[in-house]
Amino acid sequence: MDFFDVVDTRRSVRKYNSTPVPKEVLVKSLEAALLAPNSSNMQPWEFFCVTNADKKAELAAACLSQPSAKTAAALVVAVARRDRWRQVQGQVLEAFERNGVTDPQVLSYYKKLVPLVYSHGPLGVFGLVKKLVVTFQGFFKPVPRGPFSNRAVEMTVVKTTALACQNFMNAVSALGYDSCPMEGFDEVRVKKALAIKGQARVVMVISCGKKDPEGIYGPRMRMPKEQFLHFID
Amino acid sequence: MDFFDVVDTRRSVRKYNSTPVPKEVLVKSLEAALLAPNSSNMQPWEFFCVTNADKKAELAAACLSQPSAKTAAALVVAVARRDRWRQVQGQVLEAFERNGVTDPQVLSYYKKLVPLVYSHGPLGVFGLVKKLVVTFQGFFKPVPRGPFSNRAVEMTVVKTTALACQNFMNAVSALGYDSCPMEGFDEVRVKKALAIKGQARVVMVISCGKKDPEGIYGPRMRMPKEQFLHFID
Repeated sequence: MDFFDVVDTRRSVRKYNSTPVPKEVLVKSLEAALLAPNSSNMQPWEFFCVTNADKKAELAAACLSQPSAKTAAALVVAVARRDRWRQVQGQVLEAFERNGVTDPQVLSYYKKLVPLVYSHGPLGVFGLVKKLVVTFQGFFKPVPRGPFSNRAVEMTVVKTTALACQNFMNAVSALGYDSCPMEGFDEVRVKKALAIKGQARVVMVISCGKKDPEGIYGPRMRMPKEQFLHFID
Repeated sequence: MDFFDVVDTRRSVRKYNSTPVPKEVLVKSLEAALLAPNSSNMQPWEFFCVTNADKKAELAAACLSQPSAKTAAALVVAVARRDRWRQVQGQVLEAFERNGVTDPQVLSYYKKLVPLVYSHGPLGVFGLVKKLVVTFQGFFKPVPRGPFSNRAVEMTVVKTTALACQNFMNAVSALGYDSCPMEGFDEVRVKKALAIKGQARVVMVISCGKKDPEGIYGPRMRMPKEQFLHFID
């Protein structure tokens, strides 16, 4: 399906009919998610794809029983993890060694810069020092303004995971199915249902299925684009 | 261009040749961005599309002079605004009135729930009260676990804006051009360059152009998908 047709036709669906979503549709769409660009290639995302009836019901309740969750054939929980960078960093460095990558700038990026970005020491003390030093340098030259805290790293990994989510939803549409991203959920209960531990944030729960005729709430409503787009030619 | 081909071929490009990106490519891609799903349809995004040489140079410096920024034909700055919801809320309610939408649940969502989600009173006091009440209710039933602070609203609007960014980058690829999302930038200087005021966060700066043969740093590297995908069938 043409890219722009996908973007045009994708709508958030609040009610699905009972058609199941084939597993290959979910797998292919999740694989598209994993091809999104991501911060320093740290791939800080995790996706739980739930079609099991009991678990789905438990999750739908945690999604405040909204119709989109209750009627979905599948619920995909997108999770951002700020605690997985060490693993991926190790894998990246291993792959570099295997493939004979020896560029010192590239190696230093992954060996030194990535830990500097992702870790902030006990109680974030190291982040605070970083912030002081960098803010001072910032009077004289351009400097990155973060992340200087675990919370700021969380923002980075959530942002990256959102990029993947958009690929996922578009892929579902490209394959003839529908979806809806939901932010109205009980994060504590969603994590409990999926036994998610560690420094994880649930970014969104995406319901999937085939839309019911009443599944779309009215025509798409976007405000005038001049409100959002500014051109400096 | 087929959706999955777009996702497969999009790569982050670090060096562009001197080919300009036609304005219609940028406009069409930005319009695709604005069709992304977004939290409560509050459309809390703003995009600055910079092709002016001086302004572009100023922004490239603010992007720490990384090659992807320095060689780009256009720089698109994606901004998330937690302070624009009142305007869009008003527009949505006006549109409802114009179109005869009278469903009390829908009206109450936009009249009452949206302000409850987006505003937290002076010093966030109201958010704190909300957090206490909701956390207590959470012992007995599923409840949303936020946003209870301006910072949490910021997370929501940044997340939504990232969805739009992914549409934008894919659109650029679909139209035969290249892009790279950058998080290494000096937010203070980017805002200053574009005279961005108010409660705005720069989500990412996206460089655009036609890739130089050296513009892609090696083959795409993704870790085994089993590491990220979990199926509960």
